[in-house]
Amino acid sequence: MSNSPLHEYERVPEPTLRRLPWYLSTVKLLREKGEQYVSSTQISKDINVDASQIAKDLSYVKVSGRTRVGYEIEELIQALESFLGFTNMHKAFLFGAGSLGRALLGDSGLHQFGLEIVAAFDVNPALVGTEVGGVPIFHTRDFVRKMAELRVDIGVLTVPISIAQQVTDEMVAGGIKAVWNFTPFRIRVPEHIVVQNTSLYAHLAVMFNRLNCNRTNNHRQ
Amino acid sequence: MSNSPLHEYERVPEPTLRRLPWYLSTVKLLREKGEQYVSSTQISKDINVDASQIAKDLSYVKVSGRTRVGYEIEELIQALESFLGFTNMHKAFLFGAGSLGRALLGDSGLHQFGLEIVAAFDVNPALVGTEVGGVPIFHTRDFVRKMAELRVDIGVLTVPISIAQQVTDEMVAGGIKAVWNFTPFRIRVPEHIVVQNTSLYAHLAVMFNRLNCNRTNNHRQ
Repeated sequence: MSNSPLHEYERVPEPTLRRLPWYLSTVKLLREKGEQYVSSTQISKDINVDASQIAKDLSYVKVSGRTRVGYEIEELIQALESFLGFTNMHKAFLFGAGSLGRALLGDSGLHQFGLEIVAAFDVNPALVGTEVGGVPIFHTRDFVRKMAELRVDIGVLTVPISIAQQVTDEMVAGGIKAVWNFTPFRIRVPEHIVVQNTSLYAHLAVMFNRLNCNRTNNHRQ
Repeated sequence: MSNSPLHEYERVPEPTLRRLPWYLSTVKLLREKGEQYVSSTQISKDINVDASQIAKDLSYVKVSGRTRVGYEIEELIQALESFLGFTNMHKAFLFGAGSLGRALLGDSGLHQFGLEIVAAFDVNPALVGTEVGGVPIFHTRDFVRKMAELRVDIGVLTVPISIAQQVTDEMVAGGIKAVWNFTPFRIRVPEHIVVQNTSLYAHLAVMFNRLNCNRTNNHRQ
């Protein structure tokens, strides 16, 4: 990490960070098809995002295309994966080995995108001492000890909402720098702590509403 | 569904739909504590969202607070759960029973928030004929037959990116009305089809970038 150039860590706008993985998956598909070069115009056609927007987003990645040829696909993939943090392994602890927590422990895809959950914590005696997806589950009171042992910056929060804030406070007090919050609870953290909210249930609510809107409109037509 | 009032299905702004679950979890906590009434000011203090914003968001839900007393908590919870679609069970098919797909099949939380995955589809012979979390896995070629048998509107997309578009096209041709896309691929659908993108990996990219920014800034200080 210390050898990485500083310019990689400028604060990139969130919409850009959300679009870059689209470009990555698109150019990966082109590589599978044997292509060697790609232009922003071509990516634009494939995924229906404005070509100038794509060029602007890619300018953050410090990879430059060549006139008429475009971007070298292999170089672009490597630059994107590195830029997005998928090639550096980031260690994480998971808090709350309930249904969603265990589901995440079983998802090997996270590992492929740079997240390695090295331990989970729970208070349920039926879970403590077991493993899910190769990840050991410890009692929550062992967190401080494991924190001293392993260098971990990221905490994945999958506890019930009734203890979401309390566990967050303990994580932060123990030295966690970023919380990936899967609960539908809006946690509060000190300013220097990163929070990424991923509430599957909020996404469900948006999808249900859109689906019902379409139904209503169809009935009206 | 047909008895639900039409006004429930107006198109609600996405930011509102994303905040409403925060209010829901906050007032559920207050209920656990034995509270009976809550004001938007009190919710505001708890979760650090402007009280006028909360009142505006809650106006969509057609639940009205009373001067000085606020909202009746039990009524507010029921109204929110119903409005967000968590009390109606929505049947879904899951496409792609790989690592993430099986993780979602194992997450009983989805059921609690109105999503019931009734069948999964895959082409892997080692998976076809098995069950995960009580959900049977069929061969992808059985989709049309199962679609005729079960009334399903929602397709959960957890296939590899190389077939994400193809499977989406088949889902839509088969009558799926909403796609919950967990792949980092930007799928294309006809205008009347709902797409909800939930790329865990895009969220990881945002979190990694913010974490690295904070690190860099701390080193500079």
